[in-house]
Amino acid sequence: MSLNLAVEAISELASLDPLIALLAGDIKCVNAMILERLASEVPVIPELAGHLIAAGGKRIRPMMTLAGARIAGGSPHAIGLATAVEFIHSATLLHDDVIDQSHLRRGRETANALWGNEASVLVGDFLFARAFELMVEAGDIDVLGQLANASARITEGEIKQMAIAGQPDTAKADYLDVITGKTAVLFAAAAAAGARLAGANSNDITVMYDYGMQLGLAFQIMDDAMDYAVSSSAMGKNAGDDFTDQKITLPVILAWQGGDANDRKFWQRTMGDGDFADGDLATAQAILTRHDALNQSITMAGDYANAAIDALTRLSSASADQAELISALAAAARFSGARQT
Amino acid sequence: MSLNLAVEAISELASLDPLIALLAGDIKCVNAMILERLASEVPVIPELAGHLIAAGGKRIRPMMTLAGARIAGGSPHAIGLATAVEFIHSATLLHDDVIDQSHLRRGRETANALWGNEASVLVGDFLFARAFELMVEAGDIDVLGQLANASARITEGEIKQMAIAGQPDTAKADYLDVITGKTAVLFAAAAAAGARLAGANSNDITVMYDYGMQLGLAFQIMDDAMDYAVSSSAMGKNAGDDFTDQKITLPVILAWQGGDANDRKFWQRTMGDGDFADGDLATAQAILTRHDALNQSITMAGDYANAAIDALTRLSSASADQAELISALAAAARFSGARQT
Repeated sequence: MSLNLAVEAISELASLDPLIALLAGDIKCVNAMILERLASEVPVIPELAGHLIAAGGKRIRPMMTLAGARIAGGSPHAIGLATAVEFIHSATLLHDDVIDQSHLRRGRETANALWGNEASVLVGDFLFARAFELMVEAGDIDVLGQLANASARITEGEIKQMAIAGQPDTAKADYLDVITGKTAVLFAAAAAAGARLAGANSNDITVMYDYGMQLGLAFQIMDDAMDYAVSSSAMGKNAGDDFTDQKITLPVILAWQGGDANDRKFWQRTMGDGDFADGDLATAQAILTRHDALNQSITMAGDYANAAIDALTRLSSASADQAELISALAAAARFSGARQT
Repeated sequence: MSLNLAVEAISELASLDPLIALLAGDIKCVNAMILERLASEVPVIPELAGHLIAAGGKRIRPMMTLAGARIAGGSPHAIGLATAVEFIHSATLLHDDVIDQSHLRRGRETANALWGNEASVLVGDFLFARAFELMVEAGDIDVLGQLANASARITEGEIKQMAIAGQPDTAKADYLDVITGKTAVLFAAAAAAGARLAGANSNDITVMYDYGMQLGLAFQIMDDAMDYAVSSSAMGKNAGDDFTDQKITLPVILAWQGGDANDRKFWQRTMGDGDFADGDLATAQAILTRHDALNQSITMAGDYANAAIDALTRLSSASADQAELISALAAAARFSGARQT
């Protein structure tokens, strides 16, 4: 896959637009509640967390919750729950950046680069605790249980990711296990929790869970492929970060599996042993291109996106309002599915 | 205060014995549940967390929950809630050791020294998430809310502690604010949550909250005084850790406030600017002795301990069973109160 194709794939994210348009009012309320709930008499908390959260991001996880709630007719507590979901996600980002020693996220300096690792760890903990306070306010103990379980699985996924770091011979199943935990489970739980909170029937709660799960997998696989494809400016982070962090993702696994002894020697020296030289990233990209590893990854993301769209057809009810929402959810999934045609 | 006197004060902790004896069966169940709930398919989780939690500790926070529940006749969910409280505490210890770059806790190498900072951050997150799963199982949303709020306040206390680090001219009120957040609020919430879970009336819930709060303040002030007084072997951590970490605690605040220009110059160079030389800890201890700062700190801890004992007299009901428990709770508080007589 060429750089141009990859940038084109990114632009397909614009198909999030219908969902963003439908949920714009709610998202505005979520943004307001984020600011409100970052308030603390300890000034570094709103400063540091605000730096990360105000920097944007697509708010795709809270949109899962808002959409899940709308599928079942909405809930007065959906905004608070969506805010909680964004806080959980933000807490993991703060801790990830400490662990990866990242200095750039979404095109800006990271919180740990500006305030230090100590503050980032503690403010992450604060966001996590605040998320649970928000969930308590939503008042549904089953919803709370689902998001508490998702939170535990996120950390399990991240710890497993750490365990496979530097092992280019990782099996695809282990990679899928990692991204299920670290990414997809929160998408799934966020969507299902929204539906449950709004009183959806059990079929629709399951459908929203499945939709979120498949979308989350597609989303993470695309993200991992893009890391090798685009420039810093398009991505808002450094291209090749996963490479130098020795973080084993799908493209490398595919290239290792299809690779010869020379390829494997290269992966072992770089991502395996952490012995990097100038030009290694370009060599890695050339090997990935030779094995069609980025296109294969994007095809796989497309399969998951299609599964997400399929799940939506199993929703039990569909008023006119919901038809528009379902179509927007399908469009959100299609960003990678489009690669397939 | 001489070293001998300080070691004697530590031995007063043995007056926790009646409470430990009364709750021995429950504590055994908590220890079993800790092991059970550390289970994960990711091996480093039970290994790392087990290293910390199995190393002991007094289990004083879960005992607050167990005692709170017993005051109101007990609850089948008290064990799970007490386990959740220990998990919250353990998560903060893992993150504290990363932040303080500690290598020794309870006389053993720290988890971060053995497994690295990354794993310690993530396993801390896991324990925190698991704690909320356990609380969900307990099934009481008010209890959950109280412990979620306590968790947020712990991190606020720790962030504020970081903010006053290196400032020997810190006001006593700011120090009290820090230890209220980082320590006493969890003691209070743990005790009150146990009482609430077991259906205590609102008076008794408040009493247990107050008892836990005052005990927590006494406990932390004693801990901070002991850091300057005892040898590594008696403390299970390095004496003078707070000094070299530039962590401002009550003895230093008292010695600064009563100190002359020379004293203040010393505190500023060492704890203020972090410029340490051989023999500085001994000099610090000599200045503290000259200002009677450790005895004054212990007297203050004793005042809080007495307030904890006073709170117990406000409990609305007292069966024969409860009389024994209340007497054990009073003995637990008396460890520092005894210094006063």
